[in-house]
Amino acid sequence: MPDLNNRIVIIGGGFGGLYAAKALTGNTVTVTLIDRRNFHLFQPLLYQVATGGLSPADIAYPLRTVFKRQQNLQVILGEVIDIDFTEKHVTVEDRKYVYDFLIIATGSQNYYFGHNEWAKQAPGLKNIEEATFIRGRILSAFEQAELETDSENRAALLTFAIIGGGPAGVEMAGAIAELSRLTLLHEFRNINPEDARILLIEGADRILPPYPASLSQKAARSLQRLGIEIMTRTKVTQIDSRAVTAETEKGRVTIAAHTVLWTAGVTGSSLGGSIEKNTSIVRDKSGRIAVDKYCRLPGYNDVFVIGDLALFKDTNSLPLPGTAPVAMQQGRYVAKVIKSSVKKKDSPPFRFKNRGNLAVIGRSSAVAFSGKLKFSGIFAWLLWLFVHLMYLVGFENRLLVFLQWAFNYFTKNKSARLITNLKYMD
Amino acid sequence: MPDLNNRIVIIGGGFGGLYAAKALTGNTVTVTLIDRRNFHLFQPLLYQVATGGLSPADIAYPLRTVFKRQQNLQVILGEVIDIDFTEKHVTVEDRKYVYDFLIIATGSQNYYFGHNEWAKQAPGLKNIEEATFIRGRILSAFEQAELETDSENRAALLTFAIIGGGPAGVEMAGAIAELSRLTLLHEFRNINPEDARILLIEGADRILPPYPASLSQKAARSLQRLGIEIMTRTKVTQIDSRAVTAETEKGRVTIAAHTVLWTAGVTGSSLGGSIEKNTSIVRDKSGRIAVDKYCRLPGYNDVFVIGDLALFKDTNSLPLPGTAPVAMQQGRYVAKVIKSSVKKKDSPPFRFKNRGNLAVIGRSSAVAFSGKLKFSGIFAWLLWLFVHLMYLVGFENRLLVFLQWAFNYFTKNKSARLITNLKYMD
Repeated sequence: MPDLNNRIVIIGGGFGGLYAAKALTGNTVTVTLIDRRNFHLFQPLLYQVATGGLSPADIAYPLRTVFKRQQNLQVILGEVIDIDFTEKHVTVEDRKYVYDFLIIATGSQNYYFGHNEWAKQAPGLKNIEEATFIRGRILSAFEQAELETDSENRAALLTFAIIGGGPAGVEMAGAIAELSRLTLLHEFRNINPEDARILLIEGADRILPPYPASLSQKAARSLQRLGIEIMTRTKVTQIDSRAVTAETEKGRVTIAAHTVLWTAGVTGSSLGGSIEKNTSIVRDKSGRIAVDKYCRLPGYNDVFVIGDLALFKDTNSLPLPGTAPVAMQQGRYVAKVIKSSVKKKDSPPFRFKNRGNLAVIGRSSAVAFSGKLKFSGIFAWLLWLFVHLMYLVGFENRLLVFLQWAFNYFTKNKSARLITNLKYMD
Repeated sequence: MPDLNNRIVIIGGGFGGLYAAKALTGNTVTVTLIDRRNFHLFQPLLYQVATGGLSPADIAYPLRTVFKRQQNLQVILGEVIDIDFTEKHVTVEDRKYVYDFLIIATGSQNYYFGHNEWAKQAPGLKNIEEATFIRGRILSAFEQAELETDSENRAALLTFAIIGGGPAGVEMAGAIAELSRLTLLHEFRNINPEDARILLIEGADRILPPYPASLSQKAARSLQRLGIEIMTRTKVTQIDSRAVTAETEKGRVTIAAHTVLWTAGVTGSSLGGSIEKNTSIVRDKSGRIAVDKYCRLPGYNDVFVIGDLALFKDTNSLPLPGTAPVAMQQGRYVAKVIKSSVKKKDSPPFRFKNRGNLAVIGRSSAVAFSGKLKFSGIFAWLLWLFVHLMYLVGFENRLLVFLQWAFNYFTKNKSARLITNLKYMD
């Protein structure tokens, strides 16, 4: 039987929580993993669900199956509504889970810079329902255009505006280009899907701002070859059901666009509010909780915040990005810290090992850099494929995704093009 | 250019409409295929989506992709709201499609014998949204049971009542048994999923009423070995959110059941109402439209009704069942009749070639008969697998389904176990 002071509660089964839980094996600790969903979601491939390339279940894996054999762990399906840092328990509906150590790994959510009214018109891509909703939106736009007789309306239906030129926006733009230029070709009788106008709108002076400038340029050229229009130094000021309005260097523009997608900003998950309320800690402007160099909540040696919700400052004082590798490494790290702590041992501070950054653009095209090493084209693309297959959970999922990518590569088909559940956002 | 009197409109892209459209190639006819959904759905495997074995896209295929190369055919996404048999056009929203020949193949919908209030509590299995909703219901029942402290409530949460002992009910019961007895084993800490009680409720004196009595018995024994309780001669009189009430030979029983599924009855699709309104033809008690021996609407030589919506009486005056083979053969047949008609040639009446009936029970277990030939067990099961893979549309889908079946067979896992879109029915 484990000691009573070794009860670990993990909130969130994303990359951070999953890797922490996996590392907390053994009979010296008991683990309770709480998630709102019954599966771990491989978010980096969500855009492929949104563009009909993969099915939701291909990139989601039941948490209970992951931990079937880990006898010291229980999975709880539910939403944590409050945390009591004094009494040391978290509340899920009417139940309380007492902890000796707490790991908060609830990630981030879409952020509209104070314009929550844009959420409905410009959905973001954080969960499966949003992905299948966006998929239906994109496919419906082509269907409606096929039936539209007014040429102006038809053009608006075939205009896709992606707001945010980071990796997620670049991926979405590339995938929609592939859909319209390759997959849907010859499928319509009244429209030519190739006429679809795809805009990538970015506030900074180049796309992929965190990447080296030369790679941003390469990515921009690749996207332009796919017929994507890139608008940099452009700030969106209004979104409604018919158009996007933005400030550019040359003044205000209004673009009639039926489909608007949001990849421009995220903020820490709402549980950050509970932390703010119950401690003296204040979130930063991105909704993140600043943690110490052990990923701990300042002043609470038994509470860890990891992944997208955490603001961890690197040795050079720059915050770590909200990516899967950061969350995974932090998850593994805090598991180690806790195990050492149980044995009354000290741990070294967290150091992020940055193995590199990858952004995919489309067929045979990606950009990557690691330290001073930069590369692009088919080699970066193959690396991207390999890394993403590697980190998918479950051999069956890996095989299914690999096969669908192979089919997609050779036939240009995207086989999961279903318009379903359009009621979801209404 | 085709003659103006060779415009064919097909309503519905299910088995009937799909096979008719595929057979109507060539440049002597133009075809308009209208469907509410953008995909053909392989309904016979929908129960595997509902029990987490397959993803929706594995058994659905975009109609536009099927007909990409068939230049004489256009696909229209929309719902037919009215048919004018005098002016010869169908109405989709505010658009009219004129026909010289019309094929109505809109299938069937769940029927609750006048108790539409049961629909919410006891969903049926006719489309993808219902399948993913049922999947969420079933999986949530186990999740809630895991957290439930009251033993009576827990038992109700783990009780699954399937109403209707036909092939669909048998398949659902078998799949839920497999889920609870094999897939979910060891995944929970407070409940044993094997404790799940699965009831198959049938009004007739045996399950699989259209099958030979000896096969019904074999199927019943197989189901009982999986721990399924079979209640025959049992008529459901009430369904609410907590229980099913039924009349049995021994009197009234009330069974506390959290999950109730409906496979007991279907009725012709609602477009039958439009036919009834605009002609003198009256639907039968199962909502079907009686057709002549050429599958024509009586009195209308240019209108065909096929598949589940049609009541076609065989040479021995028995109605053909609402199955995929009937719809497929009728689809191909009416395409031939139309092509002959265009050439001013007569056609022989429709004859259904019954190649046999198959119902799957579970792993390595099925029953089948063809004429006087009856068989069961693993051979029937392998035949079932083969036939279903054969008729799936698309090589990629066939491969993906085959692989998932192979994984399921060897690992007992069902990998598409996601709780999503639970809001759908609310």
